[in-house]
Order: sequence, then C-alpha cells, then structure tokens
Amino acid sequence: MADVTVSIVGASGYTGGELLRLLIFHPEVEIKQVTSERFFGKPIHKVHPNLRKLSNLKFNSLSDLDPCDLLFLCLPHGESMQKIEQYKKLAKKIIDLSADFRLHSAELYEKWYKKPHANPALLKDFIYGIPELHREKMKKTNFVSSAGCNATATILGLYPLYKNDLVELEQTVVEVKVGSSEGGNKFSMASHHPERSGCVRSFSPTSHRHVAEMIQELGMGRDIRIHFSATSIDMVRGVLATSHVFLKKPMEEKEIWKVYRDAYGNEPFIRIVKEREGNYRYPEPKLLSGTNYCDIGFELDPHSNRLVVISAIDNLMKGAAGQAVQAMNLMYGFDETTALQFPGLNPV
Amino acid sequence: MADVTVSIVGASGYTGGELLRLLIFHPEVEIKQVTSERFFGKPIHKVHPNLRKLSNLKFNSLSDLDPCDLLFLCLPHGESMQKIEQYKKLAKKIIDLSADFRLHSAELYEKWYKKPHANPALLKDFIYGIPELHREKMKKTNFVSSAGCNATATILGLYPLYKNDLVELEQTVVEVKVGSSEGGNKFSMASHHPERSGCVRSFSPTSHRHVAEMIQELGMGRDIRIHFSATSIDMVRGVLATSHVFLKKPMEEKEIWKVYRDAYGNEPFIRIVKEREGNYRYPEPKLLSGTNYCDIGFELDPHSNRLVVISAIDNLMKGAAGQAVQAMNLMYGFDETTALQFPGLNPV
Amino acid sequence: MADVTVSIVGASGYTGGELLRLLIFHPEVEIKQVTSERFFGKPIHKVHPNLRKLSNLKFNSLSDLDPCDLLFLCLPHGESMQKIEQYKKLAKKIIDLSADFRLHSAELYEKWYKKPHANPALLKDFIYGIPELHREKMKKTNFVSSAGCNATATILGLYPLYKNDLVELEQTVVEVKVGSSEGGNKFSMASHHPERSGCVRSFSPTSHRHVAEMIQELGMGRDIRIHFSATSIDMVRGVLATSHVFLKKPMEEKEIWKVYRDAYGNEPFIRIVKEREGNYRYPEPKLLSGTNYCDIGFELDPHSNRLVVISAIDNLMKGAAGQAVQAMNLMYGFDETTALQFPGLNPV
Amino acid sequence: MADVTVSIVGASGYTGGELLRLLIFHPEVEIKQVTSERFFGKPIHKVHPNLRKLSNLKFNSLSDLDPCDLLFLCLPHGESMQKIEQYKKLAKKIIDLSADFRLHSAELYEKWYKKPHANPALLKDFIYGIPELHREKMKKTNFVSSAGCNATATILGLYPLYKNDLVELEQTVVEVKVGSSEGGNKFSMASHHPERSGCVRSFSPTSHRHVAEMIQELGMGRDIRIHFSATSIDMVRGVLATSHVFLKKPMEEKEIWKVYRDAYGNEPFIRIVKEREGNYRYPEPKLLSGTNYCDIGFELDPHSNRLVVISAIDNLMKGAAGQAVQAMNLMYGFDETTALQFPGLNPV
Repeated sequence: MADVTVSIVGASGYTGGELLRLLIFHPEVEIKQVTSERFFGKPIHKVHPNLRKLSNLKFNSLSDLDPCDLLFLCLPHGESMQKIEQYKKLAKKIIDLSADFRLHSAELYEKWYKKPHANPALLKDFIYGIPELHREKMKKTNFVSSAGCNATATILGLYPLYKNDLVELEQTVVEVKVGSSEGGNKFSMASHHPERSGCVRSFSPTSHRHVAEMIQELGMGRDIRIHFSATSIDMVRGVLATSHVFLKKPMEEKEIWKVYRDAYGNEPFIRIVKEREGNYRYPEPKLLSGTNYCDIGFELDPHSNRLVVISAIDNLMKGAAGQAVQAMNLMYGFDETTALQFPGLNPV
Repeated sequence: MADVTVSIVGASGYTGGELLRLLIFHPEVEIKQVTSERFFGKPIHKVHPNLRKLSNLKFNSLSDLDPCDLLFLCLPHGESMQKIEQYKKLAKKIIDLSADFRLHSAELYEKWYKKPHANPALLKDFIYGIPELHREKMKKTNFVSSAGCNATATILGLYPLYKNDLVELEQTVVEVKVGSSEGGNKFSMASHHPERSGCVRSFSPTSHRHVAEMIQELGMGRDIRIHFSATSIDMVRGVLATSHVFLKKPMEEKEIWKVYRDAYGNEPFIRIVKEREGNYRYPEPKLLSGTNYCDIGFELDPHSNRLVVISAIDNLMKGAAGQAVQAMNLMYGFDETTALQFPGLNPV
Repeated sequence: MADVTVSIVGASGYTGGELLRLLIFHPEVEIKQVTSERFFGKPIHKVHPNLRKLSNLKFNSLSDLDPCDLLFLCLPHGESMQKIEQYKKLAKKIIDLSADFRLHSAELYEKWYKKPHANPALLKDFIYGIPELHREKMKKTNFVSSAGCNATATILGLYPLYKNDLVELEQTVVEVKVGSSEGGNKFSMASHHPERSGCVRSFSPTSHRHVAEMIQELGMGRDIRIHFSATSIDMVRGVLATSHVFLKKPMEEKEIWKVYRDAYGNEPFIRIVKEREGNYRYPEPKLLSGTNYCDIGFELDPHSNRLVVISAIDNLMKGAAGQAVQAMNLMYGFDETTALQFPGLNPV
Repeated sequence: MADVTVSIVGASGYTGGELLRLLIFHPEVEIKQVTSERFFGKPIHKVHPNLRKLSNLKFNSLSDLDPCDLLFLCLPHGESMQKIEQYKKLAKKIIDLSADFRLHSAELYEKWYKKPHANPALLKDFIYGIPELHREKMKKTNFVSSAGCNATATILGLYPLYKNDLVELEQTVVEVKVGSSEGGNKFSMASHHPERSGCVRSFSPTSHRHVAEMIQELGMGRDIRIHFSATSIDMVRGVLATSHVFLKKPMEEKEIWKVYRDAYGNEPFIRIVKEREGNYRYPEPKLLSGTNYCDIGFELDPHSNRLVVISAIDNLMKGAAGQAVQAMNLMYGFDETTALQFPGLNPV
C-alpha cells in the first residue's frame, strides 16, 4: 500500500493521545511507532483509555525509533531543539508540537523563553503551523511547528483585522479562558481536583509566552502590542479568547462581516458565529470539544470604537493535534479535512 | 443513487440532534426531512449548534411529511402510539425512540405507565432495540423500539448473568447515576443551572419506569425483582449503573470473565473494562460521550456472594440515537458500525 | 427588646434567601415579614432549603405588609421605583437591592436602561451602596441602593487607582467572569443545565448596564470609559473581574501596594491577595462563596504600562445581600461585621 | 481567661483546615498550636487561604508541641496509634480524627486494615465519635475517635432501623457518592483535574474499610452484612449514601416517620428531608457544604419490601471536623452547637 508512515515521539501525553485518536482513523496513514519511556511496552489504551479495542500499538522507546515518512514530536518545550538533527535523519518531514520552532527570531525566543535557542539556524526552516495563514507554504515544506493553543485562538480571531490594518496597534487587550488540559498530564498541587475544581484562576495576568507568537503573526513586521491575560476556569478542554481591539476608523457591522468572510469564507475549519438569539449567539468552546473548528464572532461596542472579537477552539485539537494533522494533510496533498470531520457534540 | 431515505419526526430534541449528527455522515443514508412544529422553517443548526455548516436541512412540519424508507420517531412518551398507524403509511420501517413499544405486554405497560396502551395489538410487532440481545430478529423486522437509557446500561451489564441463571432472582439492587440530558431539552426549575449544578439528587429512589423493561429482558419469563434507584449528578451525558447481584453459587473471577467473554466477545460496541491499576480500572461514562460503546466491568466481593457489575453508556448514544442507528444498520444489512465509529475523547 | 425590625419584599429570590440566611443570625435584628406572592403561605424553607429548621417564617403577601423599621426591597429591576412612595410610608429606612436607585442622574439611567426613570426626584436621596466608598454618608442616610454585583467587583478593584488619578481615563478594559446565580431564579432555555453547564458564554460583550455605575463611581465627574465585557462560566456563585488599566506614569509594585493599603488598610472586608507561590496567588471567587469579602490583587506588565487588577466577590453577598447588611449595620451603628463573619470554605 | 486550650496535630490537611475555621470562631476555646512539618513557620493562611486575615497562627513542628487541654490528631491513618502514649502526656483529652481508634476489636481492625493494631489495649478507651449514638458516654470520656465520613452518613441513615430491629440483617446494600476532598490534599494522577473532572468512578466497588465501623455500630453485637460500594463523582465536598434495606415486615410510611422522629426528634444536627414537591425532596449534600447537618430521607418501594434511605453530609464537617467539634462541645459541657451554626448556602 502507498500509505504514509508516521511515528509519534512522546505519545503518552494528551496531545499524543489526540494524534493517535485522529490517525488511527486516517485512511492514508499508517502509524508505525509511538514512543514513551515511562510506559514502554504497554499497550496505548493503558494511557489513552478511549482507544481501548481500537489499536494494537504498544509504546516503544525513543532509542528503538525506526525511519518513517513523518515524525510528530510531542515533547516538552525545549527538548525538540536539542535533538532535532537526529530526528531529521529518521524522517524527511517533521511536525513539532512544542514551542521550540514557532518563532523565526532567536532573539524573540530568548526574550520570551528566558534562555538561548539551541538551534537558531533551523528557525527559518519551520513554517508556523496555522494553515489558514500559511497554507501555500505548508504544501511545499518539510517542517511545520504547530502554534500554541492560546496563540491559535487569538491569532485566528484577529488576523483579518490586522492583515487589513484596521485596528490600533498598541491597544489590543486579549483575555483567554482556558481549561485544565492545557497544562498537560503532569499532576501537581495546582491540578489537584479539590484545588482546581471551581477555580477562576489568574494564572498568567501578564507575560504569557504565547504573546511572542501573536506579535510575530499579527504584527507582520509592524511594532504591535498584545496586552494578554490568561485565566483558568473549571473546564478540561477549550479556549475562549475575548479580544478587545480598537478600530482606527468607524466601521459598520456589515463591513466587519465582509472582512471576515473575505478572509475565511472558504476555510473548512472556520465558522463565523454571530446570532441574534438563542444560547449560542457567540462561539462556545464546549461545542468544539474533539473538533478542529475555530469559531469566531464579534460585537461592535455602540459606546466607543471598540470591537470585541470572540474566538473559540479545542486546545488539544485546533490548538495542537488537529492543527498538526491538518498541516500533514496539506504537506502530502491529502484532502485537508481527512480524519478531522468529527462535528462535536450537543448537548455536552 | 441507492441510498436509503430516512426522516426524523420530532428532530428538535437532544435525541433528534444526535440522530442528525450521526446520519449526516452515514454513507448509505439520505436524510429527507426533519420535523419540528416549534422550529418550523429554521435551519437545524439554530437548534443543534454543533451542526453549523454541516447541513442545509430545515425543520418541516409534521403535516408536510413525505413518504420515505424509514422513520425515526423521537416524540414524547405517549405520542407515538397514538398515531403509529399514520406513520406506518409513510414508511415501511419505523424505529421508535419513545417508551411506547418497548414492552410486549399491555398489562405490564399499564402497571408501570399508569395508563392503558393506545395500540396494544402492535406491541408484539416491535423488536426491543438492544442489538446485542435481538440481533437476528432485527435483521428481519420492520419495527424497532429503542430501549430506555437506564434500562440499556443495566440490561447489558446483567444480561450474561441472567441468561446463564447465575444470580438470585429477587435480590438484585441497581443504582444508576445519570446526567441532565436524560431529561431532554424541556427546561424547568429542576433543570435551572444554579439548582441542578452540583446536585446529587435522588430523583427516583423507587418506581422508575425503566424497571419494566429490565424485568422483561432479564427475566425472560422468570419472576424477578430489580430493586432500582436513580440519582442525578452534575454531568450532562452519561449513565453509570452499579448493579449488586448475588451469586447462586460461588464463582471465581476467571469464571465471570468467561461468562462475559462468551456473551460479548464478538460485540463491536461492548468492552470489558477491568484493570488492576490506573484511573480507569472500571467503566467511566465520560470516556463514552458521543460513542456507541457500552463498557462493562465487575468486582467480586471477598466478604460475601455479591458481585458488583459496573456498566456505562452515553444515554443519548447507546442509550438512544446510537442504538437506533445500530438497529437501522442491522435492518438494512449495512456494516453494523457504520456512522458509529467515533471513539470518544480523553481527557474530557 | 430593642431589636430593629426589618421586612423583606420579594424574599423568594436568591438575594432574598441570602438576606434571610444572614438576618436569622443577626443579634440586633428581628425579621418581621417576608413577602412572596407566588409562595404565599409557605414556610421559607420550601424555597430556601438551606434554612430548614432555622426559622418559622412564612411568606406573606405584599398587601399584608406591616410597618417596620427597615425594608429590604428585592424586586425585579424597574419595580421599586414604581411604588417607592408606598414603601416609604411603611418604613423609615429602605435598602433597595434593584438597579432603580443606583444612578444619581435620570439621564444616565435612561441612556443605559432604555426607559425613563419613574421617580427621578428621589435619585439624589439614595446613597450608592458600597460602604468602602460612602461609609460616612451611609451612617446618616435613610436610603441606600445596593450596587450591581459586577459593578461592585470592578469598582472596588479600581477605586484607589481612579481616586488617585493614576490611570488613563479612556483605555480601561474590564472582563468579568460570572456564575449562573447572577441571573436569579427565573429559569429559561439559557439556564437549562445541559445548555448552561460547561459554558463559556459571551453574554454581554458590550453594553452591560452596570457600566453606568462604574462611570459614575470611578469617574467622579471626569469623562471616563470602561470597555466592559461579561462572560458566563460554569459556576453558580462568584464574580472575577480582570481589569486592564494603563498607568499614566511608570510605577513600581511597592507604590501600587501603598495605594491599595492606603485605601483599604482598615477595611474589614477587603483583602489584598498577591502571593509569590501556591495555588491562590490571586483572588479566587470560590473561596469567597458565602462571605462578604472582596479580594483584590494586581500584576504589573513588564512589557508595557499595563496594570492588571484582579478582584473577586460572591455576587449574592458582597455583590448583593452582604453588602446590604453591611449598609444596614452602618445605618444603625451596629458593628459593621455583624452577621457577616462567615470566612468561606476551603477546599470547595 | 477560662478558655480551653487546644492544639491541632497535622493541621495542614483539609480536616485540619476545617477545624481551624471552626475553632477560630469558638468563644470558649483558644487555639494554642497547630503543627505541620512541611509548612513549619508559615502562617496558616498560606495553606488555608480562606483564613487570610482571620488569625496570626503559624505552623509549629510536632517536636515543639506544648501541653494543652485537648489535642486534635489529624494524622494519616496508622500514625496516631504509634505515638498515642506521647500525646496522652501532652493533653488530658484527645480527639483522634484518623481510623486508628474507631474499632473496639483489634481483630476486626486487622481484618479490614490488613495489619495488626499498634496499641490494642487502648481501643476500649475511645468512644466512637458519632454524638447521636454515644452522647452520654462522650460527656464523660477523655478520648474520642471521630467516625469515617462514609460510615457517618451510612450509620446515621440506618441507625434507627437497626436499633429497632426492623430490617433483614444480611441484605442491606449501600452505595455512596463521594467528592474529591475525601482523598485529602495529597495529589496524584488520580486527582489530576483533567482525569478527575467529570468522573463517575467506581473506586471501591467492594471492601471499603469503613464497612467495619458500620458493622460495629449497626450490628450492636448481631452478625450483619453491609454490601457497600463507593463511587467518586465530580464534586469536592459531600457524601450521599443511598441505602437499600429490606423490611422484616410491612410498614407504612407514617410508621417509618415515627421511627426516625423518635430517634432524632431532638437532635440539633439531624433533619428529616422528605418533601412531596420541589427540587429538594430528598437530602442533597451541596446544601450541607460547611455545615454540621446530616439530612436523612426515605422512600418505601411500592413493588417490594425495600426501603430506600438517603442520607447526606459534608464529609469534612459532620464526617470529620464538625463531628469532632461537636464531640468536644459535649466533652466540656459547652452548648453542643457552639461554632457549628453555619446553615449552608443556597444556591450553591
């Protein structure tokens, strides 16, 4: 068969689990190996219980990794860049889901990640992983770096406005509400259920590292500021970004509609959600659990030049594994939506 | 095209929404019409927001219903039996998702539903909708009555034990934990979020009507008692049934394993879940959200002849829409798992 | 005995229930009557089940209301102002918990509430109900209008900065996360548990009416803008306001500390919460459930002149009933913390 | 002053935190010391954030413990019995909140705890800590062992029936639904929020150790069986026990009422909850958060001799710290309800 062979490095985490869930059903792909040092030898359903009965894969050690067509790297931040040259020898194509290759500038990396980059020469080779921004480049590249989840929600929400230079560049305030799966599967007192349950926790009022990506992708060379805060709420999956932008000149609602339709009208995974009535007038992350959608809505403030943009994703899907599979589909010329068609549940 | 045409009567409820989610992706089926008097003329995504961009269907009135191959009836309990003769004229095959045709005996119906049945002559024509119990009959019938959600979880959990006559017939105690979607989308003070949130509510300590189905399907003619209680907890989807049965004679764990393997070893939607370690040692309804699985586990009490059986489903799927689609697949000879392959999410 | 006699008009709602919970244990107060047309004649625990066994009060009709020392009005917005003259005849002192008398200007009322005020002459007689801002006036007044819950959280968080003229007046962005009890006990499809559960719902991206109060209390005559949005999350009680203000000139963290200490150092119900480590580095509404505290924290953005202020309350307590009892305590010269000493739970 | 001085050994856990919350407001008690090796030297609000601004206590080391009137021992199971002789030298009275001294028989202890007891001679000196069963003995004892939380809910629910010999002794089935705080504040993968959230987890289908206490207290010398299972649900505080008992002879509902009224009519912390309508027809643990109540309801099964008894408590209060303070009040002749009057919140 002409299947593409893929392996997943670091497959015991939540992102690795989501990749597995998607790829098991991908008709063009064969999953060759999945690695985990901690769960070496165990069948994958011991770690990802939803996959029980669906696959016979067991975890391999990184040291047993064979060559394949494409490698997904799901390692903790800072690890991919250390060994990227080895991974390049194993596979022609690489999709890295860590933060290591998202920024094109080693300087910007050091400023936000507080340490020097281990392989700055490679930074320019990686395409930033949001297909809606870089689809054509993705079709030709061998290296994609998946975007941060909060960055994905924010950038997709604001991109049409920044691209068309419609907003004040220094005033944007973004507040994201995030779920607990963003922190991965490393437990701690912060993630202990009695502590984390019911929380509305200002875990990053300032200085969130995803801001660097937003500046890169929304700035497009301009000097911009994104005043960003992140608040954890009692939810497992999902990001809702509420972005407050200030319009350079007055716009009508239908003009805004046009801006978004022009940008995203043909996008398979972006929906504009803006209803006059009902419970779901604006995007709602719970409807997106397990899907690759980014839903976007907006409301003009009648009292000022503020435009509130609301964008929602599933952080593990459009914010990680789904985005990566969409990129892979593009890199191989598959139908872009392959294995990504789950529509989400309601009620949920 | 050789597609089967189906219509859904009463498609604005949660069960109707799930049927739509499944059937839109079913390769052998064309959804012809969906009815709702209340939402007449509106596109389905106004009521089922997860289906935005996936279908152009709009709600029809019941009075505009055209003939089709199969009708799904998603009406409130008591309505199907009133007009079943009319529906039979519109479609050769009918799957009724209400409680109206679950019981074969009009007497049993009246005892538990506190009113006479409107069309007792038809009761014998409907196959009780659990495929694992009545697969062969389903392949030949035109009429299926989907089982109650709590009944489905309980019956699937206990069927191998009752079939093999292994348990005391008068002592079984079953306690189900259920989510709020069981109540459908009719809001009330009981479903008001500040009231319903965080609840552990004994809404049916005795006299739950699904017991009648359990007696019919597990009794198989014998006189049995199911001491049943239902407790609502803070969850939207899902049923967990904890069944306490008392073994007629001592059994080893591996004997129990064999009983379940013999009964369900080839079932595509039943998994035995019983692990020595990890978080997911026993079935967990959250892992089943959106899936058609019934997960079953058990534990022998070392202090007595009690066997605790734990069974979990998604009430809207294996407990309603998924079960109905599985039945339809059998009725038409399609692959039984068609459109039912979503594996569920983790974490969630 | 020399007890103050109070009655509660509209006592079947959530705010009325909280007032009852507090006043039953208030040593200086006797609850004379509580009214509800809908629950006329029923004991209060039928509506407020937490009060079972704690009181023999039954609901009276409004038409049976006797004179008393102080009336709490817990009516829907728009009703107090219609009949305020009648209530004034029944009691010397009135605390209104609706929005009717919060604004001093009939013009501002009409702008935000989209209808003319029914009794504009009285607007100047009511003291805006936040004790931390108007304590001395409260000690002398007969009329207090409790502040809106979102307004209370926002105003208390920002008051020291605005009073000292430290922030840009047109750039403040405030995003509040709120629970479902804010909507009161009127159920609807929006509050139906399967719909409301797990939501992150942009119910008021712009134009929230509490902004009028913020402008009045923070502006203190200046022309200011509060760019406000409100998002509903899956929580019953609680408000967390995340306020992004922009400093007129650079300030050090210890200067900000001093500003808050000067403003609130002696306040019994305000705590500055700002820790270097642990789960509770910043205010967290769940810790405040049932309490009258407003917890406030802040973080300076090292990348700009932004200061993020985080403030949390229980919307039914410091945002309604607790605030009202605190006002009553001041109006009668009781110890300000009487009946308000519950410290909150942990874990919760 | 004539205050009783108390110290808390192991005060950094959830039970210790609740004791602190109660005792800070207890007018007859002075908290002398609280110990924690891990948080030595830190103010208590760093661990118990709800107590911020309410106390100047700091954690001491166990080795610095001074004599006091009464010691609360909040140590992990198995530790109290090791050093109980030392603690007896420090204080005349001891209330142990672990499982070490709950059982009167060393044999029963070894059977259920799978290890020999370290100090069997002392077992007879401790009064089992449920005041409703052993009030008179408590008034005279120096040693109380607080009951297990699940045992407390179950025993209080069933005690009147067993005392009056009304139920079959071998058939009772009990299923408790419990929150995450039962596990204390030790975090693990099992308590990691994305895993624990939304769970309905059969963590103890059989062999729960609290059964030993139930047998002791309900059996009263008779040979009885309690078929017990425990299921974790997505809640932080609270236990709901659903007990299925089988009546020896038919009883009317009013006879059951009488049995409970006779047993508990004068109990300050027990309420019979059984309503014909409304959301709160039966006990609901969320209403009891932070309170010392045990609410009890029941329903007769019209189809059999089953009686379903529903009992609810806050596991950290009536199931631990509240129960202990109630015992202390009895031991010193204080009003039994002192410091335990918080009525609970609604909505919540």
